[in-house]
Amino acid sequence: METRNAPFETKLLDRLMEKAGIDLLLATSKPNVQYLLGGYRFHFYEHFDAIGQSRYLPIFLYPRGKPDRTVYIGHKMEIAQHEVEPLWVATSRAVSAGSADAMQHAIPWLKELRPRRIAVETAFLPADAMRVLQDGFPEADIIDALPVLERLRARKTAEEIGKLRSASDRVIDAMLAVIAGHGPGSTKRELVEALRREETVRGLQFDYCLITAGTSLNRAPSDQPWRQGDILSLDSGGNYQGYIGDVCRMGVLGDPDSELVDLLAEVDAIQQAAMRAVRAGAAGGAIYTAAETALRDAPDREQIDFVAHGMGLVSHEIPHLTSTGPVSYEAEDAECPVETSMVLSIETTLQHRRRGFIKLEDTVLVGPDGFEILGEAGRGWNRGAAA
Amino acid sequence: METRNAPFETKLLDRLMEKAGIDLLLATSKPNVQYLLGGYRFHFYEHFDAIGQSRYLPIFLYPRGKPDRTVYIGHKMEIAQHEVEPLWVATSRAVSAGSADAMQHAIPWLKELRPRRIAVETAFLPADAMRVLQDGFPEADIIDALPVLERLRARKTAEEIGKLRSASDRVIDAMLAVIAGHGPGSTKRELVEALRREETVRGLQFDYCLITAGTSLNRAPSDQPWRQGDILSLDSGGNYQGYIGDVCRMGVLGDPDSELVDLLAEVDAIQQAAMRAVRAGAAGGAIYTAAETALRDAPDREQIDFVAHGMGLVSHEIPHLTSTGPVSYEAEDAECPVETSMVLSIETTLQHRRRGFIKLEDTVLVGPDGFEILGEAGRGWNRGAAA
Repeated sequence: METRNAPFETKLLDRLMEKAGIDLLLATSKPNVQYLLGGYRFHFYEHFDAIGQSRYLPIFLYPRGKPDRTVYIGHKMEIAQHEVEPLWVATSRAVSAGSADAMQHAIPWLKELRPRRIAVETAFLPADAMRVLQDGFPEADIIDALPVLERLRARKTAEEIGKLRSASDRVIDAMLAVIAGHGPGSTKRELVEALRREETVRGLQFDYCLITAGTSLNRAPSDQPWRQGDILSLDSGGNYQGYIGDVCRMGVLGDPDSELVDLLAEVDAIQQAAMRAVRAGAAGGAIYTAAETALRDAPDREQIDFVAHGMGLVSHEIPHLTSTGPVSYEAEDAECPVETSMVLSIETTLQHRRRGFIKLEDTVLVGPDGFEILGEAGRGWNRGAAA
Repeated sequence: METRNAPFETKLLDRLMEKAGIDLLLATSKPNVQYLLGGYRFHFYEHFDAIGQSRYLPIFLYPRGKPDRTVYIGHKMEIAQHEVEPLWVATSRAVSAGSADAMQHAIPWLKELRPRRIAVETAFLPADAMRVLQDGFPEADIIDALPVLERLRARKTAEEIGKLRSASDRVIDAMLAVIAGHGPGSTKRELVEALRREETVRGLQFDYCLITAGTSLNRAPSDQPWRQGDILSLDSGGNYQGYIGDVCRMGVLGDPDSELVDLLAEVDAIQQAAMRAVRAGAAGGAIYTAAETALRDAPDREQIDFVAHGMGLVSHEIPHLTSTGPVSYEAEDAECPVETSMVLSIETTLQHRRRGFIKLEDTVLVGPDGFEILGEAGRGWNRGAAA
């Protein structure tokens, strides 16, 4: 089979693997397999994982320094899609039915490579497939591939930035349609279902919606109605061709009073301060410093939380500017400069005891001299429909 | 905390666990956790699995014979949903962020129970969480929970049957809307995207659509247009509150000629023969025998495949009437009688070399004296829109 050009920087991947002493990389999560296959996702299992007793497990095998020996092990049914969307890899086999047998199909390719240190996605490799791998290579050191794969994906290509921009724009557009199209009495559950529809008709995959109405701080969908005078927060993730749009926008039924206007302005001031610190070469920690400085002047600072983190195919990825995840990169990323074409999610949340949940979340592209918001619409108070 | 009545048959689960020598059951897949929690699904992770470096892992712990000591370990963010939808379990903890730490939170509850044989979902438990479990219980025997959980779910309640009926009806209705609303020039990709929208607006989660047009047997979405005179097959799965609708219906642009009418009738005759064999007490294998007898009279028998299998929260589950999965129950289920309130998917596929892909797939409820099709609409040739 002919090998096409790899759709990612193989030299960067080789360097990262060498630094970690990895001979062989096995990617098995949907986002990483999509990245390494240049955008390919098996359509049948895009929305779910299993039709029967085992689950779908795509396996992408990359031997360090040998992009021409990359192997992809897919599900039997993938053959039809490979016919219409040929893969770049040297070898692709559409042979598996579940997770353990997928790994059994991979083993012969691995044997030939005699790997000493294998990196796998430990949270995205089922126990039964891991067992097959361990039994096949009792001598090999099996470590977590996560740091290498996250670093590989950190700087986005123009095509990826385009998809992230589309994702943000479409999520916002869907939110504004839902707010403008609903009035008093609509329940939080109905509003979430409406957002799911509005995102879907815009070509997005709906991932989730956290929602509050009125003065409640509870963000779960429920039968709570949106009432005249109530504020509303919609914090939703949807993805466009795998790339995440994740924003928060505010609605209100009626005109916001001056206190509500001031509270949203207070949240926005922190967002703006943080965004002004975003430029290539700035230390990641400088974004937090800027937000913290602005927070000092905020009247409601004790009820405000600020978070910023990288995003792309995954909602929270490099650069990790906080240590909220199970793997902490804080020291490393907070001290490292952010780089051109990284994409950040920046979020400021005011949980106001008396007025409710007021939040803005924006997606920001790191440029050589500053930042660009991907998706700027609807950052003020958006009016719901009249009764 | 007060323990409500369990939403499943705890005595049946206890018997199944005892037969397999299992002290403790850990369910970690979305369908099984939903079943054991009586329909509850954490809304945030209903459509995807991860926002960051690890993945969502709900853990339902059931100690044999002690439903009052059932524990649920959920994600930190689940607390808001538990406030509005209280769980039946004695103890629920919304504490985890990823897969390994979820298991770390579970370990103290397990220690107290001193289990000797633990059953887990090996294909739905990530390697890192399995490692935590193995390290916590180096002496315990860890086996696959799949046979016990599948058997527990085999007979459906009236509520489950209602959801399966809704799922089938809605998938069919969406298909008929797509066929009637599209004409010559629509591509297979556009038709699949239209079906995703039509299923979504009907309250379904779209899972997948396999599609053929014209004489091609390739079922992947692509830029191939549906042309005047072409037949079309839509084989889609969508779920309603977790329950699968999975049917196949046929479309055509123009009037089907007599050969096409005869070919679909040939497929339907095999479906009908198989369905007539469905009744409580009949051996599972009798359904295949009936289909095989009908096949002997079918002019195109060499191009026809017949499949029948149980379905519910998962597309292929007990009764397994064939051995297509990685775990074979064939002998057991083929010889066992099917039982009232089991639900079957019955599918006949004609891959005609000259005319293309012609298939019907139906969902059938097993009743005490016969069968009932869940979703009967659109079983003939459905006309597409005029040019």
